[in-house]
Amino acid sequence: MTKDILELAARRGFIWPSYEIYGGVGGFYDYGPLGATLKKKVEDVWRDQYCAKEGYLEISSPSVSPEEVFVASGHVNSFVDPLVECKKCGSTFRADHVILEVVDIKTDGLSFEELEEEIEKNAIKCPSCKGGLGSVGSYNLMFKTHIGPGEKRVGYLRPETAQGMFTLFNRLYSFYRIKLPFGVAQIGRAYRNEISPRQGVIRLREFNQAEIEIFVDPNEKTHENFASVENLELSLVPNEGNKLRITAGDAVKKGIVVHELLAYQLVLVKRFLDSVGLTGERVRFRQHKKTEMAHYAADCWDAEIKTEKYGWIEAVGIADRTCFDLEAHEKESGSELKAFKRFDETKTTKRVALVPNEARLGPDFKAGAKRIIEILKGLGEGEIKRFKEDGYIEIEIGSEKIRLDDKYLSVKEIEETLAGEKITPHVIEPSFGIDRIVYCILEDALGERDGKAVLHLRNAVAPVGVGVFPLVSKDELVKVAKELYEGLRDSGFYATYDAVDSIGRRYARVDEIGVPYAVTVDHDGLKDATVTIRDRDTTKQKRVGVKDLKGILKSLLEETAQFEDL
Amino acid sequence: MTKDILELAARRGFIWPSYEIYGGVGGFYDYGPLGATLKKKVEDVWRDQYCAKEGYLEISSPSVSPEEVFVASGHVNSFVDPLVECKKCGSTFRADHVILEVVDIKTDGLSFEELEEEIEKNAIKCPSCKGGLGSVGSYNLMFKTHIGPGEKRVGYLRPETAQGMFTLFNRLYSFYRIKLPFGVAQIGRAYRNEISPRQGVIRLREFNQAEIEIFVDPNEKTHENFASVENLELSLVPNEGNKLRITAGDAVKKGIVVHELLAYQLVLVKRFLDSVGLTGERVRFRQHKKTEMAHYAADCWDAEIKTEKYGWIEAVGIADRTCFDLEAHEKESGSELKAFKRFDETKTTKRVALVPNEARLGPDFKAGAKRIIEILKGLGEGEIKRFKEDGYIEIEIGSEKIRLDDKYLSVKEIEETLAGEKITPHVIEPSFGIDRIVYCILEDALGERDGKAVLHLRNAVAPVGVGVFPLVSKDELVKVAKELYEGLRDSGFYATYDAVDSIGRRYARVDEIGVPYAVTVDHDGLKDATVTIRDRDTTKQKRVGVKDLKGILKSLLEETAQFEDL
Repeated sequence: MTKDILELAARRGFIWPSYEIYGGVGGFYDYGPLGATLKKKVEDVWRDQYCAKEGYLEISSPSVSPEEVFVASGHVNSFVDPLVECKKCGSTFRADHVILEVVDIKTDGLSFEELEEEIEKNAIKCPSCKGGLGSVGSYNLMFKTHIGPGEKRVGYLRPETAQGMFTLFNRLYSFYRIKLPFGVAQIGRAYRNEISPRQGVIRLREFNQAEIEIFVDPNEKTHENFASVENLELSLVPNEGNKLRITAGDAVKKGIVVHELLAYQLVLVKRFLDSVGLTGERVRFRQHKKTEMAHYAADCWDAEIKTEKYGWIEAVGIADRTCFDLEAHEKESGSELKAFKRFDETKTTKRVALVPNEARLGPDFKAGAKRIIEILKGLGEGEIKRFKEDGYIEIEIGSEKIRLDDKYLSVKEIEETLAGEKITPHVIEPSFGIDRIVYCILEDALGERDGKAVLHLRNAVAPVGVGVFPLVSKDELVKVAKELYEGLRDSGFYATYDAVDSIGRRYARVDEIGVPYAVTVDHDGLKDATVTIRDRDTTKQKRVGVKDLKGILKSLLEETAQFEDL
Repeated sequence: MTKDILELAARRGFIWPSYEIYGGVGGFYDYGPLGATLKKKVEDVWRDQYCAKEGYLEISSPSVSPEEVFVASGHVNSFVDPLVECKKCGSTFRADHVILEVVDIKTDGLSFEELEEEIEKNAIKCPSCKGGLGSVGSYNLMFKTHIGPGEKRVGYLRPETAQGMFTLFNRLYSFYRIKLPFGVAQIGRAYRNEISPRQGVIRLREFNQAEIEIFVDPNEKTHENFASVENLELSLVPNEGNKLRITAGDAVKKGIVVHELLAYQLVLVKRFLDSVGLTGERVRFRQHKKTEMAHYAADCWDAEIKTEKYGWIEAVGIADRTCFDLEAHEKESGSELKAFKRFDETKTTKRVALVPNEARLGPDFKAGAKRIIEILKGLGEGEIKRFKEDGYIEIEIGSEKIRLDDKYLSVKEIEETLAGEKITPHVIEPSFGIDRIVYCILEDALGERDGKAVLHLRNAVAPVGVGVFPLVSKDELVKVAKELYEGLRDSGFYATYDAVDSIGRRYARVDEIGVPYAVTVDHDGLKDATVTIRDRDTTKQKRVGVKDLKGILKSLLEETAQFEDL
C-alpha cells in the first residue's frame, strides 16, 4: 500500500501540482474532484459552527486591493523575506534557506546584514552554478499588479483575508446595529509570492484561508457563554513553563491565556478540528514566544497539528490584535473607525476652552476673522496652557504669523454632558489555513487493511457519501443498482457507481477514497427489495429495505444514527 | 419605500462598494453578511444540481496562472479593449465609450483604426479636460503580475476559471477512468481589469464565476437523459427568425439548437434559474449572432435575464467550444491532450510505408545511417507519393542534402490492427456569472407592501431563514424567545433575534431582508408551549407547538412542506 498520502491524493484525484503540462509552477496546487469536494465540506463544517451557531456572518471581499490598504496594515513595509541573487547566473534564493543548506545555525531573527555576514563567513555559493552571491535584499511577498490602465494605481493580491473586514468596519458596525461585540467571517483565497516554495501543500503561493474578526470593547473581553466551555480541557504549550492539559477556565484564572474571549476561541477551534476528524493529542495550542508575537498583540496562540511528514504544523492562529488594525486604517485613510460606548449614566465633565472674542476679532481682522476663530476653537490643552502662561498666542495663517493677546480671546471653563465616548474596538482573530487542515485530515485518515489503503474520513467531510454496486454484472442487478444510484443523486447525495471487477476490488476502490458506505444489490435483495449497506471502517454489512435506504443513509451521513444500531 | 435595490442592498448589508474608506476603487464590490450568505446559497443550489445530481464534480485551481496558459487560450493576444489617452491630462478611456458619449453610432465590431477615425471625424475631446485624444491602442484586460522574484516569470489573474479545467484534462480524464463524456465544475473568482468600469455590480473587475466543462466525443453529442427533458419549453431568440417558445426536443429537430447536448444544457440552466427564483418570461435564451460567436464555436447561447435597471443582461453563456481549447493547449505545451476512442471492433487497416534498406544504408552511410533510417520512417504520405513518381527522395541532415534512390528504400503495404484511435474531445461549456445572478435575484425579489419593501426571496437562497421575536419586551417572553433562538442556531439555522420596537416594525425589518418566516412568542403561547409562525409573503400566521418548531421550519425552508398545509 501507499505510505505517502500525497501519492494517493494525486492518483485518486484529491490534489495535483498545478500546470503540469507546462512543466509545473512551484507553490501552486489544484484540488481535483475529490479534494475540492472535501475542502468544500470542511468549509461547510466551519460555516455551520462559526456562521450559523456563533453568528459570525460571512462576508466576501475582493482579493485585489489598492496599495493604501497594505501600507496601513504594514504589509508593504514588513511582509518581506531576505532575498539573495547569484552574481553569475542571476538565480534568486531565500538567503536563510541558502545558509541552512550548508551550515547548521539558527537563522530565525537574524537581520539582513547578519544573514549577509553568515554567507560571507561560510563562503556560501550559488546552489545552482556555484557563483558568488550578492548582497541580501528585502523582497516583498505580495503579488503586485496595477488596477486599470498604466501603472498609476498599484494593487496587490491580499496576503490575508482579514484586511477586508477591517476596512469594512463602519459598514459592519452599522449592520450589527452599532453594538459591540460582533464577529465577521470570511473564507477565500490569499497569496504569498514565495521566493522558492518548498514543503508541498504546506507552503503555497496561493492558499485558502478562513478568518474571523471579532470586534470587542477593550474593557469587556469576556464571553456570555464562557461558563458552558470553562470545564473543557485544552493541551497548551505556554511560552513559559511546560506543556499541560488544563481546562479553559483554569487557563484564564492562572493567567496562561490572557482572557476569557481568547480561551473561548481556543475551545471553538478545538471543537472545529474535532468535527473534521482531527482529535485528541494530535492537536495542541502553542503560545507565541514574546519575540515571535507581533508588537501590538496582547496574546497569540497557534493550533498545531501533528503530522508524520512535516512534524507539528501551524494550522490556526488565534490572536488578540488589540486596536492595531483599526487605528492603522484610521490613520492611513483619514476615516474614523470607532465605536460609540454609551456610559451607564450620562457624565458631566468640565474642561477649559479658548473663547474667541468675536466682537473684537471681526472689526480688526475683517475677512480673516472667520479663519482665526476656527483655529482658536481647534487648539488643544497645550496651547491653552501656554496662553495662560505667556498672556498671548501666535497662530499662522498661510505664511503670516498673527499674535493674539487677551483682547482677542479668553480662557473659560465649559461644562459638557456626555452620553458616552468613542472607542477603538479591539480585534480577536482566529485565522485558519484551510489547505493545511485538508492535508492533515488526509494524512490522519490514511490507514491500511489487508495491505490496501483505507481513508478513514469523518462522514461530515467525506467527498463521496455512498458507493452503489451490483454484486455481479448481471443485467437485472445492474438495472436496479443504476436506478438506486440515480435516485440517490437526484436526492442530493454524492454517490458513485461501479460495476467493473470483483466486488472486493470495488470495495477497496471506495475505501481508498474514504466513501463511508457501500450499497450492494444482490439476488436475494431482488426478491424482497433489500440491499446491503457496508460500513467502510468495520466492513460489517447490514441488510435494509430499499424504501428506507435514503433515510438511513441520510441519518448515517449526518451522524444522527449509528451503523451499529441499524 | 426604496425603488432602488442597490440602495436597500447597501443599507441592509448585502452589497457595498469596496474600499470606501480609501475613496473607493471602481469595479470592486464587497458582499456584506447578507449578500455573502445569499451568494453562498445560490452556489449551493448550483452545486446540488450540477455536482451532486449531474455528477460534474467540482475542482479548484489557482487564480494566478503563468503566461503560457493565456498565450494558448488566446487571451494574451485577444482579450483586449481599445484604449485612448488624453494628450493633455493623461487620463485614459475606452475609445468606444468616449465616442458613444458624443455621437450615436454603432461601435460594435469597429477596428481600432475605425474607432480612431470616428474620434477624428467627430472631433471628440477628452471628457475630463477637453484636451486632444491620442491614437487608439490595444489594452489587455488581464491583471498582470510576476511569479517569484524579479520579472522573469510573468503571471496573470485568470480571466475565467475554465482554463483550469482544460490544463488538467489528462488528470481529469484519468480520474473519470478514461471514458467520455465527463463534466467538471469550478466556482471561483475571475478578473477583468476594465479601463473604466461602469454599471455597478454588472461589470466588475473581480467577479465570481461558476463554470462547467463537459468533455465529449465529437461524434456523440447526444445525452442519455435527453428524453426526460425534450418536452420542456424554452424561450429562444435564435440568430435568424423570431423569438419563439419551443420544446427542447423540437429546437434540436428543427436545427435551431445545434445538438441534444447543448439543448440539454439549456434546460439545466433554466432549471437552475428557476430554483433560485428567476422564473418564467424573465429568462430567455439568445443565440449569438454569427459575428458575435467565437470563430471556433459550433453554437453559443446566452441565458439573459430581464432587469429593470439594465434591461436584458447576459447571466449565463452556453457554448459548444469544439476542440479549440484542448488543441490550443496541446500545441502550446507540447503535451498530448487526447482521449482514446475504442472502435466497436478492432480494425485492420493497410497503409503504404517507406521501408529503408538497412543492409545498404549501413555500409554506405556508416554513423549517419541511423539518423537517415529514423527520418525515412517518419515521412508521410506526400513524400511516399513523390518517391513513387520520381524514383528518388531527398532528405536533409544538418545542412547536407542526401539523395536516396530505390537502392536504399522501397515502398511496401503494411497491415495494422487498431483497437481505437486518439481523438481530441469537444467541450460544451455552461458559464455562469454569479454576481449578475445575485443582482437579478435581489432586483426581482424586491416588492412592496403598505409602503414598505419586502424581499420575496426563494427559501433556498434566503440568507436568514427565521426571525425570532418576543411579542413584547417582557422578561418571561424574552427568556423563551432567546432560548428558542439559541436552539435554532445550535441546530444550524441562520436565525435572527429582535426585541426592539413594535412587533410590526420588527416584521417589517425581516421582510426587508427576505426572511421567509418569523416566529413570535406571546403570552398565550407561554401557557400551552406554542408559538406563531408568520409567512413573509402572505403575512398569515399559524400557531404551532414549540416541540415541533424545528421540524416544521426545516420542512418549510427545504420546501418539502407548504405553509398553507400547516
